[in-house]
Amino acid sequence: MNADSLKSLLTAVANGQTSVEDALSSCRHLSVEDIGYAHIDHHRSLRKGFPEVIFGQNKPVKQIIGIMERMALWEKIILVTRIEEDKAGAVLEKFPDAVYHKDARMICLIKTPLPVSGKGDILVISAGTSDIPVAKEAALTATAMGNRVETIFDVGVAGIHRLFRYKEKIEAAAVLVVVAGMEGALPSVVAGLVDRPVIAVPTSVGYGSSFGGLTALFSMLNSCSSNIAVVNIDNGFGAGFMASIINRL
Amino acid sequence: MNADSLKSLLTAVANGQTSVEDALSSCRHLSVEDIGYAHIDHHRSLRKGFPEVIFGQNKPVKQIIGIMERMALWEKIILVTRIEEDKAGAVLEKFPDAVYHKDARMICLIKTPLPVSGKGDILVISAGTSDIPVAKEAALTATAMGNRVETIFDVGVAGIHRLFRYKEKIEAAAVLVVVAGMEGALPSVVAGLVDRPVIAVPTSVGYGSSFGGLTALFSMLNSCSSNIAVVNIDNGFGAGFMASIINRL
Amino acid sequence: MNADSLKSLLTAVANGQTSVEDALSSCRHLSVEDIGYAHIDHHRSLRKGFPEVIFGQNKPVKQIIGIMERMALWEKIILVTRIEEDKAGAVLEKFPDAVYHKDARMICLIKTPLPVSGKGDILVISAGTSDIPVAKEAALTATAMGNRVETIFDVGVAGIHRLFRYKEKIEAAAVLVVVAGMEGALPSVVAGLVDRPVIAVPTSVGYGSSFGGLTALFSMLNSCSSNIAVVNIDNGFGAGFMASIINRL
Amino acid sequence: MNADSLKSLLTAVANGQTSVEDALSSCRHLSVEDIGYAHIDHHRSLRKGFPEVIFGQNKPVKQIIGIMERMALWEKIILVTRIEEDKAGAVLEKFPDAVYHKDARMICLIKTPLPVSGKGDILVISAGTSDIPVAKEAALTATAMGNRVETIFDVGVAGIHRLFRYKEKIEAAAVLVVVAGMEGALPSVVAGLVDRPVIAVPTSVGYGSSFGGLTALFSMLNSCSSNIAVVNIDNGFGAGFMASIINRL
Amino acid sequence: MNADSLKSLLTAVANGQTSVEDALSSCRHLSVEDIGYAHIDHHRSLRKGFPEVIFGQNKPVKQIIGIMERMALWEKIILVTRIEEDKAGAVLEKFPDAVYHKDARMICLIKTPLPVSGKGDILVISAGTSDIPVAKEAALTATAMGNRVETIFDVGVAGIHRLFRYKEKIEAAAVLVVVAGMEGALPSVVAGLVDRPVIAVPTSVGYGSSFGGLTALFSMLNSCSSNIAVVNIDNGFGAGFMASIINRL
Amino acid sequence: MNADSLKSLLTAVANGQTSVEDALSSCRHLSVEDIGYAHIDHHRSLRKGFPEVIFGQNKPVKQIIGIMERMALWEKIILVTRIEEDKAGAVLEKFPDAVYHKDARMICLIKTPLPVSGKGDILVISAGTSDIPVAKEAALTATAMGNRVETIFDVGVAGIHRLFRYKEKIEAAAVLVVVAGMEGALPSVVAGLVDRPVIAVPTSVGYGSSFGGLTALFSMLNSCSSNIAVVNIDNGFGAGFMASIINRL
Amino acid sequence: MNADSLKSLLTAVANGQTSVEDALSSCRHLSVEDIGYAHIDHHRSLRKGFPEVIFGQNKPVKQIIGIMERMALWEKIILVTRIEEDKAGAVLEKFPDAVYHKDARMICLIKTPLPVSGKGDILVISAGTSDIPVAKEAALTATAMGNRVETIFDVGVAGIHRLFRYKEKIEAAAVLVVVAGMEGALPSVVAGLVDRPVIAVPTSVGYGSSFGGLTALFSMLNSCSSNIAVVNIDNGFGAGFMASIINRL
Amino acid sequence: MNADSLKSLLTAVANGQTSVEDALSSCRHLSVEDIGYAHIDHHRSLRKGFPEVIFGQNKPVKQIIGIMERMALWEKIILVTRIEEDKAGAVLEKFPDAVYHKDARMICLIKTPLPVSGKGDILVISAGTSDIPVAKEAALTATAMGNRVETIFDVGVAGIHRLFRYKEKIEAAAVLVVVAGMEGALPSVVAGLVDRPVIAVPTSVGYGSSFGGLTALFSMLNSCSSNIAVVNIDNGFGAGFMASIINRL
Repeated sequence: MNADSLKSLLTAVANGQTSVEDALSSCRHLSVEDIGYAHIDHHRSLRKGFPEVIFGQNKPVKQIIGIMERMALWEKIILVTRIEEDKAGAVLEKFPDAVYHKDARMICLIKTPLPVSGKGDILVISAGTSDIPVAKEAALTATAMGNRVETIFDVGVAGIHRLFRYKEKIEAAAVLVVVAGMEGALPSVVAGLVDRPVIAVPTSVGYGSSFGGLTALFSMLNSCSSNIAVVNIDNGFGAGFMASIINRL
Repeated sequence: MNADSLKSLLTAVANGQTSVEDALSSCRHLSVEDIGYAHIDHHRSLRKGFPEVIFGQNKPVKQIIGIMERMALWEKIILVTRIEEDKAGAVLEKFPDAVYHKDARMICLIKTPLPVSGKGDILVISAGTSDIPVAKEAALTATAMGNRVETIFDVGVAGIHRLFRYKEKIEAAAVLVVVAGMEGALPSVVAGLVDRPVIAVPTSVGYGSSFGGLTALFSMLNSCSSNIAVVNIDNGFGAGFMASIINRL
Repeated sequence: MNADSLKSLLTAVANGQTSVEDALSSCRHLSVEDIGYAHIDHHRSLRKGFPEVIFGQNKPVKQIIGIMERMALWEKIILVTRIEEDKAGAVLEKFPDAVYHKDARMICLIKTPLPVSGKGDILVISAGTSDIPVAKEAALTATAMGNRVETIFDVGVAGIHRLFRYKEKIEAAAVLVVVAGMEGALPSVVAGLVDRPVIAVPTSVGYGSSFGGLTALFSMLNSCSSNIAVVNIDNGFGAGFMASIINRL
Repeated sequence: MNADSLKSLLTAVANGQTSVEDALSSCRHLSVEDIGYAHIDHHRSLRKGFPEVIFGQNKPVKQIIGIMERMALWEKIILVTRIEEDKAGAVLEKFPDAVYHKDARMICLIKTPLPVSGKGDILVISAGTSDIPVAKEAALTATAMGNRVETIFDVGVAGIHRLFRYKEKIEAAAVLVVVAGMEGALPSVVAGLVDRPVIAVPTSVGYGSSFGGLTALFSMLNSCSSNIAVVNIDNGFGAGFMASIINRL
Repeated sequence: MNADSLKSLLTAVANGQTSVEDALSSCRHLSVEDIGYAHIDHHRSLRKGFPEVIFGQNKPVKQIIGIMERMALWEKIILVTRIEEDKAGAVLEKFPDAVYHKDARMICLIKTPLPVSGKGDILVISAGTSDIPVAKEAALTATAMGNRVETIFDVGVAGIHRLFRYKEKIEAAAVLVVVAGMEGALPSVVAGLVDRPVIAVPTSVGYGSSFGGLTALFSMLNSCSSNIAVVNIDNGFGAGFMASIINRL
Repeated sequence: MNADSLKSLLTAVANGQTSVEDALSSCRHLSVEDIGYAHIDHHRSLRKGFPEVIFGQNKPVKQIIGIMERMALWEKIILVTRIEEDKAGAVLEKFPDAVYHKDARMICLIKTPLPVSGKGDILVISAGTSDIPVAKEAALTATAMGNRVETIFDVGVAGIHRLFRYKEKIEAAAVLVVVAGMEGALPSVVAGLVDRPVIAVPTSVGYGSSFGGLTALFSMLNSCSSNIAVVNIDNGFGAGFMASIINRL
Repeated sequence: MNADSLKSLLTAVANGQTSVEDALSSCRHLSVEDIGYAHIDHHRSLRKGFPEVIFGQNKPVKQIIGIMERMALWEKIILVTRIEEDKAGAVLEKFPDAVYHKDARMICLIKTPLPVSGKGDILVISAGTSDIPVAKEAALTATAMGNRVETIFDVGVAGIHRLFRYKEKIEAAAVLVVVAGMEGALPSVVAGLVDRPVIAVPTSVGYGSSFGGLTALFSMLNSCSSNIAVVNIDNGFGAGFMASIINRL
Repeated sequence: MNADSLKSLLTAVANGQTSVEDALSSCRHLSVEDIGYAHIDHHRSLRKGFPEVIFGQNKPVKQIIGIMERMALWEKIILVTRIEEDKAGAVLEKFPDAVYHKDARMICLIKTPLPVSGKGDILVISAGTSDIPVAKEAALTATAMGNRVETIFDVGVAGIHRLFRYKEKIEAAAVLVVVAGMEGALPSVVAGLVDRPVIAVPTSVGYGSSFGGLTALFSMLNSCSSNIAVVNIDNGFGAGFMASIINRL
């Protein structure tokens, strides 16, 4: 339930368009709703300005749809992350207005987009071609949360002149999300170029001693730049979310 | 060299108080200065609004003093982190205006404090009594960088009613730094209470399977709250720095 | 062989309904029985009040059925854990009275339920929707062992007000089983609310630096609450068993 | 503040021996008390039947004494764990009635012992001579919490006949704490002999691939016995505490 | 080439049944033979009393057959380990006298069995039902190498009376191979009962913190018994081989 | 774009065969070209003497073909590594002149081979039959980069006389690439025999405590020979590349 | 108590030199003796042919002496391992006949040496100079247990010709103990040269990615030779013991 | 024994200045010399152009001096690495011509320097001030082996413009050694700028999740540049040695 839905409801009561009983019933779910396999927090977008996001991995598609149905009563934006193509198909049959972004493995159901706000642009940079899916998850999240988002892909440190071509764009960003696998060095370099906050996202791209992203993760945590903080491996969503929270401070 | 120093110099030249030759010589260090064991980046506070911070660990005290002497020519604030009491004593003999914060293992040499700015307060919370040194390093850093800083210590999740006594203070903060060792659960709980960015700092406090802070670190990276990003173990300085960068966005 | 079976047998001998020879033959398996691929401990339910439980993972279905056939001669309750749907199907063909709980991956063959006993209720709490299968394994085990069992699902620490809605239920429980993946913080918080024993179960739910449950495991071992002990990752059965043992002390 | 202290106070007020003002002042600390570096939870022994225990490791002795002074106003029992001999000396100067147990690195300040209660005996078993300090920490904790405690030391699995000499004592115990380093096999063997709950404590005793107790910890978590739960490496206190909580269920 | 083959060849030359040229040609492969993807060491059974054993895992079936064809010219026994059922089928078509042991994933092609020799029996013990495949690999290897082999399966430490039923058999063995997954405690207990060498084999059986056998491996390396040495996880072949080498000392 | 292509273009302009406008347009891609999912560095073979190599793993085949199409305009040699058979099939349909090396999982598209140069031969040695794919990747890379390459396969340290048969070849090489899985000991032994640089390549061949190549990797990093440096697990390409760079110094 | 002591006692009783009462009293300790901090197994040398060995690390010197005093009543040989020089001094004051081997950190108190027995020589080989202490611990143990022992030190694989100078000695040994740190490759090479059992001992010698001996340990477990089994890091005593057990089979 | 020493000796014999007997005696050590705790390989500088280097860590100073005394008879250059100041003092008393480099913990005893040779300069770059000791070990080694060596210190990636100031020097080097701790990103960036071989050296500088250099090590192994190979953590000597071997190819 977002602030607008609540306001409409109260106005309808004030106008006599809705009886107090009906309004009460509608508000029943303003608190946490227990649907057996999940507790849906309908208060969340009122309190936080953005509703809960559904983590699709490991969840049966029936549960995903069940949660969406409850949320769809009140929310204008519903995001589902880490959802594979076949499960997404079943969701889209139920919610034809939803859009599935295959490379980012993400469903966006946006009835009314949030107006663009925030201090400035969020810039999402990725080191390699294979890091793009995680980078896109970050970009889609930040966009859905009402930010203007720019992207630069495939500018890893092994050919650092590729990065420097975008110096202006980099310096103009308010918040940066930098995505890298393998040695995970790109966030350190980027953070050294700017005085803005950088959210670093390690990816599981690599082989051998990349350890499914651990090497990149630890590399980022040990950055000698100080305007960096790190999220979990492949957590593009978390990075986009954190960047949005910072941008709208 | 900060912007004020540069402006004074240029004014003095304009007024004829300083000859062009002398000014040139003074500016010699505006670029990076190589003193053998270190490259001092005098541009940094011009570019970034805050000078380099000296990481004291492993550095011979002679090198620390050497770097401080070069920086002190231009900078109004010099911080040294991770410096033990005996080395700090030698530094304070040379720089009697510097202050040593023993529990945070930090030297602050502040000729002219930065004016308080930023969106709001930075709140530093620590889970246990033993986490206080890291929390203080974060708080001192954020204060030196021109923020109003509040602290709450020893409110770990095992007695969560202690935390809830500070609900108002928590909800009022613009940016939060949450410091915890052992199971590292506090940042998740705090982040669930607010819609502001939380910088989580794992500490090496604990024993056995705390692995010198790794358990807390991984716990924080896996937080089911999304408004969290993490810095390295015991990196109070980094957390205070990142929080400041965010707060002044 | 449970105490009732033994008593019936002895009574039959006393009554002359069973010859001593036949009784002897029946008792042959009172000791350990070697069936080639397994040593079945028929003494166990006599000694311990509950028969052996079959760990289904990695065992060929033929062996599972073979063991069940030997046990079924004497036991009133047979549990099989970690058995996938296809193997379970083959078992249920042989034992039509058995019930397969798909989400908990568990077969319960209960000829005569144990009477409810114990100090009080066992409460099973899970942090996330994806932790439910492990939580259900714990709940089914505790129920089969003769306890009254309550459950609360999806009340992770990121929205801690969801947990506090159940404060009374939590404080009323005699023994608690708390199941969590990702950062594994829930058992610490719950244990801080009660003065009863909490069995913590880490799950392999998560990604990246959750390391298949290791992060949750270590988080729980490092809990700053002291009324916690931990079982292996995803070991819902063990937690339910231990809770039952404690409850009937 | 325990229940007795509170009752005395209220009686004194009822009798007019204490003015309401003085009583109020005394009660000031019934809630959580903030002494800067610690939040002391005076409610705890009221709520839980046992006061907070001070974790001495890493805490400056001044802080330990400071916390003890606040607690001593109300509590009848104060325990300090993991405190080295020199720091303990300083504490005992302040609190001459306290006793320091050097091998267990523990201070017990017991004004009025708790009456012995609980379902039965708690038995503490250790595998090797070097595991004794951790075993004693468990035994002292359980004793202070009002249990009858028995101990058997140095009965590791390499000479298992040593263990079997104590079969009766083992079978008679209500709750068992089993302490082992190196391969950590003892809890599995003991748990197989009884139908009571076993709290397993890995110790950091060993070398090479014992990894400071990790091997013993993982060995215990993987026990094929099901009546086992595990606490952190060297956490004798936690094991004694958990055993007491179970015993008084 | 074993000693018998060589003797026959030389006798044939001595008798004039074989020309020197033909004999020379036959001996061409007495040294190492390079067949492109492998160097076959035909000297080995002459030097060591047993030919090379083919490690089937990861090898294309064409290479396995190719190596067998070269070895079959001279050797009386060929073993292939870690070969899955489908690949084994292709091998057996080529070598109809070979036998595939499915649970041990092993092919034995035995033209002439080695006579039984050695100091005494080799006893292979396994802790759980799921450890049987590895135990059988050890037993088949030791049998093929000319030892009398006994086995006891499913006698893990959680029900240690099952083990003690076989005390005599255990004490009678000359060399013991003890196979265990999960907590890996069985070799320690067995080694404490005998004064003979014990080869411990960890298996990858388990889940969660069993880490694919690492916990069992480390447990065995840390055994407080001294008559133990350890081989790699799941290395039944190596254990059977080492036991044979010891037994024929 | 290599030097020859550039020279032809400039000559054509000089001769009037190409207008300045057309030449300009051709040169557009001399700098980095952004094709959305990749930044292609056309300068690279001009600067470095060898074009970028496409890492096929995780890249959709459409992207691989897209990158090849842009590169094929200017480059004489294109390599694609870590590409599975089905994806390779799709590539070869587009580029019929390309060759797929199935065991090395590598595509070589060589329009004009580089002339053989370098100080001497590069020798690639592999320890086991299963290490051959990685060894071949190294050999193909070095060959494509214009070196004479020799190979020796299956000469692991367990039968070290097999290695010594190739002593002359080993001593004659200018640079050596030594590939080994399992215990990874071969590079140490080989490096002890020569005074030339050895590039060591660990492979993921093995099981149990080989940890997917980590054991071999660490073994090589700890070599007591000093003329060794190491590349990532299974990184045959990197080893062949580094050996070529050294050989042409 | 060894067999000789027992025989003397019984003879004395038979001769009337000792009264039955005195003999009984003497035999009191034939069973396990509990001295509070240790259970001394006086049966052990009767049962196993060699008494318990005292692991000195972490044991207070008072306990070591206490155990030795009880053992000295009956045993002819007492070994103490891992005992530092200062603690050894205190022991030698009490037992002037004991000898301290400083580099092996071992005390040997040998009243009557065991006669040399066994199948043949035990050969102890070490890879580097720094591995000698562990190698000596193995050699001293095997010598004390009644074997003829040979040693070769500092013949690591980086200069393998040093090893081959001792080919005859190596081929003549009945059992081999091979000690190596760093890459741990020596046991693989040695085992390839012989058809006798090799006990491999990793040492903690090295730095960086040697991980205190883990790299050598895993290298040895992954040996492509099959006549190898491994003991814990730095466990020279265990290797010497196991080799003796094998040699006297 | 280097080639010059040998030539002088032979000339002296030819001239009759040395009797054959004396020469023979002098040559006694041309083969490997066994001095009990070490096998000195006097052939090495003849075969390899550079004598053995003494690894000082863990070696008693008496052994270091003993080895030096034997080597000093023939060699013109002796290096001792990883030797602490107090042990170095004892060495210098014996060898007054030796020089101790305290920051690199290295002794160089150079009677006759090697002439400068090689393809070009070796450039040693370090990321941070604290990495200088390792960088100096590399530089001293390469200098002693007859290379011209350049150094650049403190140019980490967080302020990458510091690195670019040295672009010409970097591009002019024949071989590069790049030393970095923490995130270990510098070698990737440097290797991207050149087409020469880069030897990457991780250092143990850092804290928290730097894991004593492991993060830097893995970061370097995962570099997306291909002209990189890596040596062990803190192995400045190995890097300098490998760079020299490459430079003189």
